Amino acid sequence: MLAALENPMRKIKRLMITKRSHDQYQKALTDIHLNHRSLNPEIAPIEQFEKNLPDDCVHQGIALLTAPLPDAHLDECCTVVAGQKNLILILDQVTDPHNVGAIIRSAAAFGAKALVTTDRHAPPESGTIAKSASGALEVLPWVRVTNLARALDQFAEMGYWRIGLDGHSNADIREASFGSNIALVMGAEGKGLRKGTADHCDVLVKLPISRAVESLNVSNAAAVALYVFSAKD
Amino acid sequence: MLAALENPMRKIKRLMITKRSHDQYQKALTDIHLNHRSLNPEIAPIEQFEKNLPDDCVHQGIALLTAPLPDAHLDECCTVVAGQKNLILILDQVTDPHNVGAIIRSAAAFGAKALVTTDRHAPPESGTIAKSASGALEVLPWVRVTNLARALDQFAEMGYWRIGLDGHSNADIREASFGSNIALVMGAEGKGLRKGTADHCDVLVKLPISRAVESLNVSNAAAVALYVFSAKD
Repeated sequence: MLAALENPMRKIKRLMITKRSHDQYQKALTDIHLNHRSLNPEIAPIEQFEKNLPDDCVHQGIALLTAPLPDAHLDECCTVVAGQKNLILILDQVTDPHNVGAIIRSAAAFGAKALVTTDRHAPPESGTIAKSASGALEVLPWVRVTNLARALDQFAEMGYWRIGLDGHSNADIREASFGSNIALVMGAEGKGLRKGTADHCDVLVKLPISRAVESLNVSNAAAVALYVFSAKD
Repeated sequence: MLAALENPMRKIKRLMITKRSHDQYQKALTDIHLNHRSLNPEIAPIEQFEKNLPDDCVHQGIALLTAPLPDAHLDECCTVVAGQKNLILILDQVTDPHNVGAIIRSAAAFGAKALVTTDRHAPPESGTIAKSASGALEVLPWVRVTNLARALDQFAEMGYWRIGLDGHSNADIREASFGSNIALVMGAEGKGLRKGTADHCDVLVKLPISRAVESLNVSNAAAVALYVFSAKD
């Protein structure tokens, strides 16, 4: 939540806080975050506070109502910068908001420049994603495209290697060598990459996992693949 | 669920199935799984079927009622085998069942011999864990210990390097060199390793992540650390 307050691009509509949390967090909020936002916290009894939240929501007595971040644009935030690694993560129909949130967190952690999803079949920005992303939603640009195949063509033109993760591939991700501009493409658990998406990748690779399991949780697989590319020389 | 039916250690109490799923899965269930179990599926209308399940449970029309697996014992399943990697994952008070399930799946995928948790402050075996583990709960031995510090002493005596993951450490996990017997120790998100646990590690290391985020989701961090140790020569 502090990450959202710190993000100048994030439009804040309301800040509600319970009496107890107000006493506890007042100084931190005032000093760091509220002064330049001219935002007045609404202090509310816990019952009224919780009425404004989804059922079973785990909270610490502070809630922000925000507008979604403005859409990021592919040409703006995915430009290849010479002399550094350029890593993009592309998700093909991954819909679970906990997984998407964890993936956003790992993508920011391993230096990805942006997340790309389709505008349909991807979860909308939500409190669940923001919480799972633990602040990273505010720092990682999220590009939503109408047509993923067309976006993948665009990445090729920009100089990216499009690497699809596919458990059925024979190529081990560790043996792949692709230079420093990588667009990593991942499908949903179970379904994997759609054919039209796989056809627009330059190469398909798999993670080196034991035969004891068929696959990893999609956010765990993303974390490992992002780590591999971020750690490669 | 098929993984549970295939596991001879798994005691099955009941198998309920909706009419529709019975038609769909009958052959697969009979051929592969039920013949040697002498288990009679109870075919039920969907309303009655769902009454037996937790609220909001996502299902495919089949439900097993099982006993928890018998406890695995540290001395039996963690013995160092010469000439191979011996990797153990130890969780210190990680409680979220989705995370623990995903961690079990990644631990099995990257060749861990066992999962070790405390018997308190760890989630009990449940449908949520089994589903998140996607079959891996049946293949990865789970050792529950009363006293984690004492168990860590035992791992040292058995010849393991006890490596704690700690975001505040100055040592990068990639630069660490520890031989082939590794007990990887991880704490809960936010809290991290308890002091008593960290004191019983031989070394603390961190993952190489950007300053843009403070930490990873615990299951993502576990997946990356397990990958690093499984891929090390």
